[in-house]
Order: sequence, then structure tokens, then C-alpha cells
Amino acid sequence: MKSYRKVLTFNLPSRTGFVNITDEVEAALHESGIREGLCLVNPMHITASVFVNDDEPGLLADFERFFAATVPHEPIRQWRHNDTGEDNADAHVKRQLMGREVVVAVTAGRLDFGTWERIFYGEWDGRRPKRVLVKIIGE
Amino acid sequence: MKSYRKVLTFNLPSRTGFVNITDEVEAALHESGIREGLCLVNPMHITASVFVNDDEPGLLADFERFFAATVPHEPIRQWRHNDTGEDNADAHVKRQLMGREVVVAVTAGRLDFGTWERIFYGEWDGRRPKRVLVKIIGE
Amino acid sequence: MKSYRKVLTFNLPSRTGFVNITDEVEAALHESGIREGLCLVNPMHITASVFVNDDEPGLLADFERFFAATVPHEPIRQWRHNDTGEDNADAHVKRQLMGREVVVAVTAGRLDFGTWERIFYGEWDGRRPKRVLVKIIGE
Repeated sequence: MKSYRKVLTFNLPSRTGFVNITDEVEAALHESGIREGLCLVNPMHITASVFVNDDEPGLLADFERFFAATVPHEPIRQWRHNDTGEDNADAHVKRQLMGREVVVAVTAGRLDFGTWERIFYGEWDGRRPKRVLVKIIGE
Repeated sequence: MKSYRKVLTFNLPSRTGFVNITDEVEAALHESGIREGLCLVNPMHITASVFVNDDEPGLLADFERFFAATVPHEPIRQWRHNDTGEDNADAHVKRQLMGREVVVAVTAGRLDFGTWERIFYGEWDGRRPKRVLVKIIGE
Repeated sequence: MKSYRKVLTFNLPSRTGFVNITDEVEAALHESGIREGLCLVNPMHITASVFVNDDEPGLLADFERFFAATVPHEPIRQWRHNDTGEDNADAHVKRQLMGREVVVAVTAGRLDFGTWERIFYGEWDGRRPKRVLVKIIGE
């Protein structure tokens, strides 16, 4: 069995946003030399998500609006986590609803994806560098 | 390390619905000959979910009603994704909340499940054939 | 390839609650002797979650309040699943929104976590013993 580890870093200029990271993950897979296996992708932070969906700007705007309405950032004082001096309690909740990680099959050296599947980094509390772990095992 | 790949296809007659696919996944595991490892099951589409829950019709009706109320399909024009000519923005959001994939332990050649765990295909935008990937690694 | 399986049991005195199980999972990893691979952690029940987030009491209170408001336990009769004599339909829905499982990278014999990542057992229908499966594969 082979394994490969790579850390990607993202620094989004806004509080929330989505980045298509499919090419970076595919590059890591190529570097690994692994042809059959599983590829785990997860943020190393607890106010961010990694997910698979469609790279369509209208949809990404829908995600942003839906989560802003469902888990409101303000008023800050509605969240007990923010009593610690933080203001990002909503980001922790949003990351649970959107999901933490994806596991993607590796087949014949490629991410085994359907036509429209793309991997995104989902930021819920940005404006600082944050890391995404890619771990691939197989042979 | 061994790996095995199988694609299942589902064509639900309605927009939304749930199908217990445990037997199909268990059959794929049997075909693989793998006795210890991990089994990934995910839709190859971005308007569908794979999840583990209870095969009880009342609960599946509850899921359908809860998600219809939380992420409404109509009015179509409330979603920017639908400006592209699609009408399925809600399906993309529902799939995020319900989840994309499951990873199931394989032990002694079986899906290592508790008493009531069953794998479901969750359709959020049906009436066309859609694929589910089963990828098993182990030995 | 090596594999290791361990079952943890939790019996929470209240209907809902969260337990930091990071040390138990790390202990299982140590017992496994696996240095590089993947570690799956999931409840063997369908009214519980395993998730990764921050071990901060205010945040855990926020999770509890958010899910109680979003997926209300009462009135019991609003859920068709409860027509079976159960009263835990909401617990099945909450587990879908919070998530079932986590897959964690194993690197150099440790859970490959960022600074604040911790693994939690999330109970949505407690007051009875429930099992969590840890399955680790790698070498």
C-alpha cells in the first residue's frame, strides 16, 4: 500500500466564499503515483468545509444566501460560543451542515467523478490562511 | 491491496425519493472478495445523496417533508442557479444537507453495520437515469 | 495492508449531548500499530452522529439549541415515524444534518489533525448504551 499527503493553503479575502480545488487535488493524485484507492480531502480547520458540487456561479451564490439565512452571523450575541470573544459561532454550524470532508474514489490514476462533480473548499470564516489536507492511500 | 469498482444505476419516476440499496452494495462487496477494508458509496451526480438511516416508510416521508419545507423547490425564480435554465437549485442544496457519500467499514467480508443501519440512494432531481459508484479497497 | 476494529460504547443520561472521543480514537489508533492510512469513525446507530469540531462548551450549547429549533422534537405527532410508537423521528433528521461519520487521515501514527480539530460523539436519542465503530486501515 502507498500513501501520499499534501497540504494546500487558501486565504480568502472575505468571510465566506467557495473555491474550486479540483485541479489541485488532481495534481496531488498525479504526484502520488497512486492508481487505485481512496482520496480524502478535508480542511484542517473547524470553520470550513470541503464538498463536491457544481461549478456554477449562480449555485454558489445560492449556497451563500441559503446558509446566511439559515445560520445567521448576526446578531453576534445570539451564540454562546461568541461569549469567548469569537464572532464565528455561525461558521462552526455552517460547516456541519455543508459537511467537513469528501472521500473520492481513485480509479486508473484519476478522481473517479461523474460529469459535473467538482471539489470545493468552502470558507465560512476567512481573511486568514487556512489549510486543506489531501491524503491518498492505495497502490 | 485489492480494489473493486461497480456502478449502479437508478431511474426514479418522481422528482424526489429514497431507495434502500443495501443489498446491491452487499452484492458488490461479495463480488469483490474483499474481507477487510473500506467501502465508499457515492452518487456520481450532484443532485443526489447516499446516506445511512432506517428503512421505515414514515421516516422516509418525514425526510421528504422536512427537506421540502427547509429548501423549497418553488418559487423556481428564488434561486440564481435556475437563471441558467435549470429548475433544480434546491436539489443541489438538499444534497449538501443530507450528505453526498457514505464510507462503511468492511469486516469479515460484510458491511460492518449496527442492527438498523441501511444504505439509501436519495434522489432530489429524478426522472432520469443516475449512477452510484461503489468503490471498495482492502484485502 | 493492516486493519483494526474497535467498538466504543456510550450511554448518555440525557436525550441529546456531545462527548469528545478524540482520546479513545487516538488510543485505538495506537493499539492498531498503523502509521499511514485512514481511520473511519461512525455510530452503529441511526440516531447519532460522529463529527469533528471545537471542544468549547458554548459552541456545543449552540449546536444543541440550533438543532432543537431547526428540527423540533415536539409536538411528537408532527412526524410520521412516530406513528410507529417511536418518539425519535427528530433524532434521525438531526443525525443527517450533523453527519454520520468522519474519515480522518493517519500520518506517522497519529490522527492528522489541525490545531483545533477534535472528534465528537453526538447523541440525539440517548439514555441507552450505543456503540461507535472505529475502523482503521493502512500499514
